[in-house]
Amino acid sequence: MRATSTPTTFVLVHGAWCGGWCYARVAQVLRSRGHTVFTPTLTGQGERAHLISGAINLSTHIADVLGVFHCERLNDVVLAGHSYGGMVITGVADRIAGKIKALAYLDAFVPEDDQSLFDINIPANTQRFLAGVGALGGLAVPVPPAAYFGVNAADAALVDALATPFPLGCFSEKLKLTGAYRSVAKCLYVHGTMLPRESPFRPFYERAIAAGWSAHALSCGHHVMLDEPERTAELLESLA
Amino acid sequence: MRATSTPTTFVLVHGAWCGGWCYARVAQVLRSRGHTVFTPTLTGQGERAHLISGAINLSTHIADVLGVFHCERLNDVVLAGHSYGGMVITGVADRIAGKIKALAYLDAFVPEDDQSLFDINIPANTQRFLAGVGALGGLAVPVPPAAYFGVNAADAALVDALATPFPLGCFSEKLKLTGAYRSVAKCLYVHGTMLPRESPFRPFYERAIAAGWSAHALSCGHHVMLDEPERTAELLESLA
Amino acid sequence: MRATSTPTTFVLVHGAWCGGWCYARVAQVLRSRGHTVFTPTLTGQGERAHLISGAINLSTHIADVLGVFHCERLNDVVLAGHSYGGMVITGVADRIAGKIKALAYLDAFVPEDDQSLFDINIPANTQRFLAGVGALGGLAVPVPPAAYFGVNAADAALVDALATPFPLGCFSEKLKLTGAYRSVAKCLYVHGTMLPRESPFRPFYERAIAAGWSAHALSCGHHVMLDEPERTAELLESLA
Repeated sequence: MRATSTPTTFVLVHGAWCGGWCYARVAQVLRSRGHTVFTPTLTGQGERAHLISGAINLSTHIADVLGVFHCERLNDVVLAGHSYGGMVITGVADRIAGKIKALAYLDAFVPEDDQSLFDINIPANTQRFLAGVGALGGLAVPVPPAAYFGVNAADAALVDALATPFPLGCFSEKLKLTGAYRSVAKCLYVHGTMLPRESPFRPFYERAIAAGWSAHALSCGHHVMLDEPERTAELLESLA
Repeated sequence: MRATSTPTTFVLVHGAWCGGWCYARVAQVLRSRGHTVFTPTLTGQGERAHLISGAINLSTHIADVLGVFHCERLNDVVLAGHSYGGMVITGVADRIAGKIKALAYLDAFVPEDDQSLFDINIPANTQRFLAGVGALGGLAVPVPPAAYFGVNAADAALVDALATPFPLGCFSEKLKLTGAYRSVAKCLYVHGTMLPRESPFRPFYERAIAAGWSAHALSCGHHVMLDEPERTAELLESLA
Repeated sequence: MRATSTPTTFVLVHGAWCGGWCYARVAQVLRSRGHTVFTPTLTGQGERAHLISGAINLSTHIADVLGVFHCERLNDVVLAGHSYGGMVITGVADRIAGKIKALAYLDAFVPEDDQSLFDINIPANTQRFLAGVGALGGLAVPVPPAAYFGVNAADAALVDALATPFPLGCFSEKLKLTGAYRSVAKCLYVHGTMLPRESPFRPFYERAIAAGWSAHALSCGHHVMLDEPERTAELLESLA
């Protein structure tokens, strides 16, 4: 067993069409090393899919995570977000920067003030997602297949089984930022290089390098926590 | 360190005006012994308090917990419920009895078919709760103070700080049961004997003894997981 | 043809388990005499029954009627409410007393500040209604049969066919009143004396007499607009 780092609290936020379940292995590794881990599921997704409604937006999901900090009395947290989760953790960090020790973007969007995910995704992706909402009542984005994300063969069936439509307002709401989140001292970027199409995350990875973040490229698909759970846990633990 | 039991999965369901946070200490103890623990927060409570609405009922909360079983692919689970949580776990067990190894009622209501919590609480309590809803829009039950539950002095302020109004429909909806939940082999009852008023839970504890359950009385208030976290964890672990 | 009174605007608010349809005959009579008549259906009832949800309360219904005043630019209105509709029109009048010429309570509840309908109904009725909600998810009150209201034989089948469950929050929310509604100059009470059980409306009728309102007893059931449409229209017109 490797040397244990300082016991630290991790809050791991999943991406679109996903749930806290995607972090099960990473959480197990971190807990086995003495850390405290929360993997909240965002409203309308995963085991909260029965709450799906057109009233859910990015602000709802930011409130979901702020609630965990409030109710669990958290401080000095490593806050990670995967993919869309990068929108959520940036919004959370802007509200309670003083409680966050480090931000970890796992192949995630890194928004600036007044940007929605639709604004910073590749236009063809935004168009694809918008084109799909009409068939689901206009307020939810259909699930892309696991193959779209280059999920490893062993986990593809699970990802397809658990994915449910994603609330449109989470992609369309522009995030308002005061800039307070920039006071978080440490930032990490983990990029999965094997997406079977143009990656919207590569520019964020390159910007992370340019900004002097701890930046890492893994030879795997977009779901780094499923494709490379040990390595992802190790990188998260480097922030402890 | 004590001998470790078989690594087991625990799902711990909180009561009214509470949240997953109340199980933090019990979860920590169980995880330190190698167990996997989920402490889902019910919709409209704790860190999900921003989702409060009149549309939430007992069925919503049963769906919350069924979702955890589905998304985390759980089996062979020890399922515990505190207070109102006894309504929820009975409903969950009736739907997926085959995935449940044992049921643990922590100073909880134990409903039968076609009963609501209002039906099986002491009438004066039901009247008190109903009398309070009118001032909150008619659809949420105001928070009683921690003293009402006899919470220990050290935790009373936390309980008061995190409690939020409870959805009326969770108390008023009658639970429909097929009886399938009766096939769960092991049942445990833990009763807190120090409630500073007539206890609605004492009859359930006595019935548990009569039915041959593993039944235990602790000299503490209603929130056994806060007042006696080590002992509560130990009793839960006896079901592993 | 009778001498026509001043052309006046009437807003007629129905009771629980009903809809604007119950005023069809009364509206026809009043319009034939040159008046303007609105018979809004409250959210979750009648032709709006598809909107039923646990999120509806008395405040919702007050907003329904305030909306008609706003969008139709109404002033100098005779505002009538039947049964539960008395709760609604009192709340509306408290908000926009200056736009209301007269209030007409048709066998209706007449609430005071901080009272819910449950508070001022006969306790046995409140208990009956509450006992019924559990089977409908805890948030809607089942429909009593037309016979419960003493509806005339010719209309009973229609009333039974169109009635749908009523949102619990409309009965349980306490009405907050500033007292501004008391500035409405004219008030009318119409009581149906033939209810086949103890009438919760008789005390309001007696209080109306004591207060010097225009008060009338009709030898018919609770649904005076169905049992005595001509007479009801005539009494309403007396306020024009």
